[in-house]
Parts: sequence; structure tokens; C-alpha cells
Amino acid sequence: MYGYQPGIRHVIALAVALACTGAAHALDPLPSWRDGAAKSGILAFVEDASHEGVQGFIPAPQRIAVFDMDGTLIPEKPLPAAVLPIVADVRTAVSRHPELREKPAVSALLAGDLPALQATGQAGLVSVVAAAVDDRTVEEVERDTAVAQRKLPNPRFGRPYTALAYRPMLELLALLRAHGFSIWICSGSPLAFTRGLALEEFGVAPSQVIGSSLATRLATKDQRTVLVYTGAIEQVTDKEGKPPAIHRAIGQRPAFVSGNVGGEGDLAMMRYSQDRDGASFQLLINHDDAVREFAYAEPGHASLDAAAAHHFTVVSMARDWLALFNDPPPREAAGSPPGE
Amino acid sequence: MYGYQPGIRHVIALAVALACTGAAHALDPLPSWRDGAAKSGILAFVEDASHEGVQGFIPAPQRIAVFDMDGTLIPEKPLPAAVLPIVADVRTAVSRHPELREKPAVSALLAGDLPALQATGQAGLVSVVAAAVDDRTVEEVERDTAVAQRKLPNPRFGRPYTALAYRPMLELLALLRAHGFSIWICSGSPLAFTRGLALEEFGVAPSQVIGSSLATRLATKDQRTVLVYTGAIEQVTDKEGKPPAIHRAIGQRPAFVSGNVGGEGDLAMMRYSQDRDGASFQLLINHDDAVREFAYAEPGHASLDAAAAHHFTVVSMARDWLALFNDPPPREAAGSPPGE
Repeated sequence: MYGYQPGIRHVIALAVALACTGAAHALDPLPSWRDGAAKSGILAFVEDASHEGVQGFIPAPQRIAVFDMDGTLIPEKPLPAAVLPIVADVRTAVSRHPELREKPAVSALLAGDLPALQATGQAGLVSVVAAAVDDRTVEEVERDTAVAQRKLPNPRFGRPYTALAYRPMLELLALLRAHGFSIWICSGSPLAFTRGLALEEFGVAPSQVIGSSLATRLATKDQRTVLVYTGAIEQVTDKEGKPPAIHRAIGQRPAFVSGNVGGEGDLAMMRYSQDRDGASFQLLINHDDAVREFAYAEPGHASLDAAAAHHFTVVSMARDWLALFNDPPPREAAGSPPGE
Repeated sequence: MYGYQPGIRHVIALAVALACTGAAHALDPLPSWRDGAAKSGILAFVEDASHEGVQGFIPAPQRIAVFDMDGTLIPEKPLPAAVLPIVADVRTAVSRHPELREKPAVSALLAGDLPALQATGQAGLVSVVAAAVDDRTVEEVERDTAVAQRKLPNPRFGRPYTALAYRPMLELLALLRAHGFSIWICSGSPLAFTRGLALEEFGVAPSQVIGSSLATRLATKDQRTVLVYTGAIEQVTDKEGKPPAIHRAIGQRPAFVSGNVGGEGDLAMMRYSQDRDGASFQLLINHDDAVREFAYAEPGHASLDAAAAHHFTVVSMARDWLALFNDPPPREAAGSPPGE
């Protein structure tokens, strides 16, 4: 159901990027990060974590790093990657089940009203996806919808989300892996639409992806045992739902967690990580780069306030990241980039 | 929360066992298996799975092996490992919430009526455990109950379940790992009581264990962020609940599945594995060894009938296994073994 060469694409891209940065940066594992507190904090943490005897040492099986996906590894504006490809599916579902139109998230999606859609929260988005996959098999949804999703362009950048990984975060994943960390993704988006992207873009195996899950039931179709989506929601893995989902999937508190501002989605798993026995690191991405990406946060700046109170490390996309995307600068869909 | 040296114990035991079997068996990866259809079928499958170009080749990321635990890797009679240690916890819970006594599984447990308890099925057992852990943190249950559980003796053999791994199955796990398979356990027993045992006895990491899960909620206790059991059941991973749980946790159909007769618990995941694209193997353990262990099956022999219909490979514990337990023969609690 998934490809066989996880991560090859970004490994090659990174190797090329490293080879091109010249001798001065050849030994810098985070060349896209500006020197500063965030970068030096990360480097010190991974060094200590992998050196037995020092205070910050973390035994290898406990070197678990959990990343949010939308807004942390790829853009989540103007809309998360999981939403784009299901509009057609939702129209089909509504034609069969007109009562679906009563769901606020469904009506907002069909009206193209993104603010109203996002106001329904992660649970609203998941309910839309549940409607869109109802009565299809797991394999049909992967083949007919998820594969297509990975080719649809982000409306602002004109390129698919699989080409919009943040380059500094790819460098961070490689650094953590090189120091024996296992990489997990814990996203509020439905597993059906995060696993393929996580594998293709970040080399994260389907079994290392935690996400909102849609109920399935065993059935027989064309004389074959299959799993069919029932239309029900099993779990929504957002906010305070993330630590229980991490416990269920991993069984240990993560030592490293990264999330982003905008929806308070990652604060709970950051606190859960911080209160483990032993060293830990929490990294909060601040979307403050309206020029290269987007500038947004919660109305009351809840995530930044929590970061200050709990001593989470904050990354300014505008100031701390020298490069934003892994691939050459994307052409903006709404116009030409400066200087072109 | 768990130890740092998964599997060392059984790796050493196996190395010693292999060293002692002499030259004739030195190259046999399954020395406790009698030559026959089951053994040769397994050996041919793993050889083909790991040799690119042959028909049965399985790409490495798809080499996923899923084992049931109770009755497949360790005995499940006279009662499953998860039940024994919670009797005291259930008494405490009932004294606080007398209405729990109305649950058939709870009253059967308190009455010591094992047949009545087992008649409530996996869901009944899980409901007992949910009552026993209610309102405690994940870490408290691990420390106060699960650790103790791993020391309590099985009533027939007088030794803890951690010393009752089936030796032929340990050899099979080692063989699969040597051929690039990742090992998962999918048990109907609650995660809270399977993960520690899986790590200690089989070297299976907590993140590779799938099981019935009890709901938790984020809370603060002694100024620390913790997960507290709510007393609710999230999912029961038995029978037709196993394939959806495998999909949620792994995201791929397993290529190798092993389960056992007795409760029809593993037939659904065997069919789910068999209908994957590509080679697969299903191994059903038949408990037909009343002398060394137990002889039991479903009243209508549903598992054996399904195995015949679907061409699953059946293992006779009495005939196919030369040795039963990994460690020296256990002393029977109810008397001395023959010859002593």
C-alpha cells in the first residue's frame, strides 16, 4: 500500500544541499539555521542525549522524538494538506446523504468558506473526512484519494505539499536520526491522509504516524477480506488528545517534541514530554514570516505565553531560518516572486 | 517506564541453548521444532521473503510479523497473565464502587469462578481491568501492578509468565528478525499488562505492542502532567477487532501472523494477512498437549476448521515441538514432574 524507498528523495536532496554549502558549513548539521539560542540549544541537547555519562544522557530506547505535521513540517495555510483533495469526495457523499450538509464543517467546505471551516476545529475537519471516505475500503481511499492529494498544489505556493517541507526541519530530523532518535509524527489530521505524505516526504514509516482515526470494520468485497470505513470517528488526536494517543501508540513519554503556534494544538504534548523523568526538549515554531510564508498565532498568543511559562524553545521562522523550503523557492501562485 | 535492555535475557538463553545442542543442530535455526510440514513451510517462507527475485520475495518494509500473545507465545491457562495480579485491585475498586459487582466478569473474578470469567470473553476481562485501574496514573499502574504481575506464578507451573515463553516461538522470533521482519504483538489483553511482559520476555518494544486500551485523560498530579485512567474502555482488540487495530497501529497488512486455537481470537487477522498483495504465512498453534501443557480448542473446532478451509499452517504442540519452555522444565505446582 505504500512505496518501498522511504525518505530517499529527501536524503538525496539534503546530501546535495550539504555538498553545495561549501567547506565552512560542511560540518554544520543545521546549515539552514541561523546561529542563536534555538540552534545551539538543539545541538547541545542531541549531543548530551547520545553521550553516556553526561547529565543529559538519554538511553537509546527512550530517544523518541514526536513532531506535529501541519504547520510544523509543512505549511498548514491557507488550508491543511488533508482538506484539499476531499472536496469532490464530500460532494459525492452529500449527494448520497443530503443530511451531511447539516454538519457545519461540511457546509463550510462546500461553500469554500475556509475561516468557517477552520473554526470547526480539528474535530470538524475530521468529520468532513469521515463523510468523504464512508463505505470505501482503506485501500480504495489510499489509491483514489490520498495518492491524488499528494499531487494537488498548495494554493499559495503552486506546488504540492510533498514539495513544501521546511528545509530546517528536514535537517533537524536528520540530526535526531543520526543521534539515535526514532522519529514519530503526531498530527490531528486523519491517518488516511498523513501516512503517505509522512513516508514520501519525511521517510517516516506508516507505523510511526499517530493521527485522528476513522473507524473501520472487517468485510468481504470481491471475495477478499478488507477493511471498510464506517463513517464513524474513532479518535481525534488534537490538543489534550495527543498525549493519550502517544501513550497508546508509543507507550513512553517523548524526549523531544516539536509543534507550532496557531491552534494551541501542541501544548499538551509538550507539557507531557517535559514532565518525563530525565532530559527533554520542546521546540515551538512561531509563524512570523509573512514574506516567505504566513504570519499567524492564536488571538491571545496562548502558545507563545505557554512557551515562556514552561521554558519551551521558540523558533522564529523569519529570524532563525535562513532557508525555508527544501527545494528551490516556489513560484507564488498569485504572482511572481521578487526579483523575477 | 520500561527497562533499557529489551530481550537480553532471552537472547542469552537462546545463545546458550544453541551452543549446547552440538554440531548437528548448530545450523538449524529451529532446533526445538520437529522436522515436518510446519517447520519446512516456515523455513521456505522466510528464505523466499528475504531473497529478491524469487516469487515469495517481500520488500523489507512489508516484512511485518504479528503474534497473538496469550496462548501463542505463553500459556493462557488456567487464566491469562493479565488477570492474576488484579484480583486485589478489583477488591479495592469494588469496596469504593459496589455497583461494579453487577458486572458478570467482576463477580466471577471475585468468586474465583474461572470458567464464568472466561465466558465473559475478552470484553469482560478488559472491563475488570478497567475497574481495577480507574483513577490511577499510567505510571502508578505500571509500578504498582504490572511489575508485580510479572513476578506472580502461573498456578499450574509455579513460575511467572515471564519464565514460560514457548521456546519454539522464541526461535521463530529470532529467525524472523534475522530475515528482516519487524515483530509486533497484537493481544486482546490490555496494553497496561502486555507491554512490560512483551519487552522483558520477547524484546518487543512498547510501541510494537497492540492491545485493548483503557481511556486516559490528561491531568496534573503533584504539579506534574500525567495521564490518568478514566475507567472507560477505548477499544477491545480481539477477533474482528484485531485487523482494524493493526491498520491503526501499523498501516499495512502483516505478511506473517501467528495465533492459537481456543477462542477464535486470531482467525480474522489471519484472513486479513492472507488477503494482502503478495506472499504471506499464517501459523495456528493447536493446544493438544495435555501432558506438558493443556489440551483445549473451541467446542466446534472453529479455528481448526478455518485453518483447513484457508490453508493456514497448523502446529501441533504435542507432535511438532520437541521442547516446550525456554527455561529448564518447570516444577508443577500440583505435584512433581515424572522422574523426579
